Amino acid sequence: MPVINVVRQVLDSNDRIAGGNRALFDEKGIYVMNLMSSPGAGKTTLVEKTIDALKGRYRIAVIEGDIQSTHDAERVARHGVPVVQINTGGGCHIDANMVREALPGLPLDEVDVLINENVGNLVCPAEFTIGENDKVMILSTPEGADKPSKYPLMFHESSVMIINKIDLLPYVEFDIVKAKADALACNPELVIIEVSCRTGQGLDAWVEWLTTRVETFRKGRA
Amino acid sequence: MPVINVVRQVLDSNDRIAGGNRALFDEKGIYVMNLMSSPGAGKTTLVEKTIDALKGRYRIAVIEGDIQSTHDAERVARHGVPVVQINTGGGCHIDANMVREALPGLPLDEVDVLINENVGNLVCPAEFTIGENDKVMILSTPEGADKPSKYPLMFHESSVMIINKIDLLPYVEFDIVKAKADALACNPELVIIEVSCRTGQGLDAWVEWLTTRVETFRKGRA
Repeated sequence: MPVINVVRQVLDSNDRIAGGNRALFDEKGIYVMNLMSSPGAGKTTLVEKTIDALKGRYRIAVIEGDIQSTHDAERVARHGVPVVQINTGGGCHIDANMVREALPGLPLDEVDVLINENVGNLVCPAEFTIGENDKVMILSTPEGADKPSKYPLMFHESSVMIINKIDLLPYVEFDIVKAKADALACNPELVIIEVSCRTGQGLDAWVEWLTTRVETFRKGRA
Repeated sequence: MPVINVVRQVLDSNDRIAGGNRALFDEKGIYVMNLMSSPGAGKTTLVEKTIDALKGRYRIAVIEGDIQSTHDAERVARHGVPVVQINTGGGCHIDANMVREALPGLPLDEVDVLINENVGNLVCPAEFTIGENDKVMILSTPEGADKPSKYPLMFHESSVMIINKIDLLPYVEFDIVKAKADALACNPELVIIEVSCRTGQGLDAWVEWLTTRVETFRKGRA
């Protein structure tokens, strides 16, 4: 089956490059997050809120992954942090090599936390590590509670599932108990945090989780 | 660039198989729709509403594409139509060969309209024709109005964009004028229909469009 061999080679090569990225991040002391979700679940808004919450504490940089356009990078740049836009030109995810090629555009000696916002896609990004410390995923309430059972890999690969748009719960059919149970069936270690990026509800818990992860990473290096 | 060659070969092969599917559909007089969207935009609910609206008029069959699970096929089967579930086993779209392999599971001599519900993904499904008459896409209001500029191929490839969840317009930030203008910039021929699958608003216009397309197809064969 040649197609399967090609895919395997691509993934092996990706893992090698991701290892190189990781070694560089360790050398520079940079905690790295890979943020994934369906289109429109709220990745860019979460990035903006996270920057604003952590700006005094950590030096943040962002890599924005999109098929085309610089829309999200422009939004993020307004928050006063260095940002590089990857345009995948049709590609449905960012991979380790795209991140490696983006890194010279960032002042890595002055970065504590690097946020990678992936292409909006609940499938393919979960297959490609980029050298991150944590994969973080967002499930938004309008998407429905059946997503863990239908797209299990992303739930399996992530450290955290952020349930976003909880302000819409009165207006959408979203069985939050089922969504959590099915997500935990994919990944019993998954941390689940409910937020509304729009109203700010729950963001404290997210920022606390992230801060703890960054501090644990820094202590491991000390 | 070997990766590009492989992709080209895959797409060429897909187009050949799609042509074979199309020839079979023409022979049998079956109008075929390829329904695509992000996860959770409302594909299955639209399929259910469409079946209920057209059941007396056309004999409908459905192919459900999902990475895993038979959840959607079970929902659709309750509406009394033949349905086959494709499980892609990790694959992020359905392709012409998967559809070809699913066809023996359907009573093709007793089908007027075949609806293919693709994997929830705003990127990859748009690259693979399956022998359809029309690609139909859904954009739901919680996803945001920036999607046409960020995921242009799907808007370019589709005959219709259904804007779903318009009942949520008071509760989400969705610039519908911008969404329409940017979608038409991707594809000036795009037909745009606003609906709420939940309340039923706008579904008459969708059913009318679809009926017209089916009748045009049947007249072309007569």
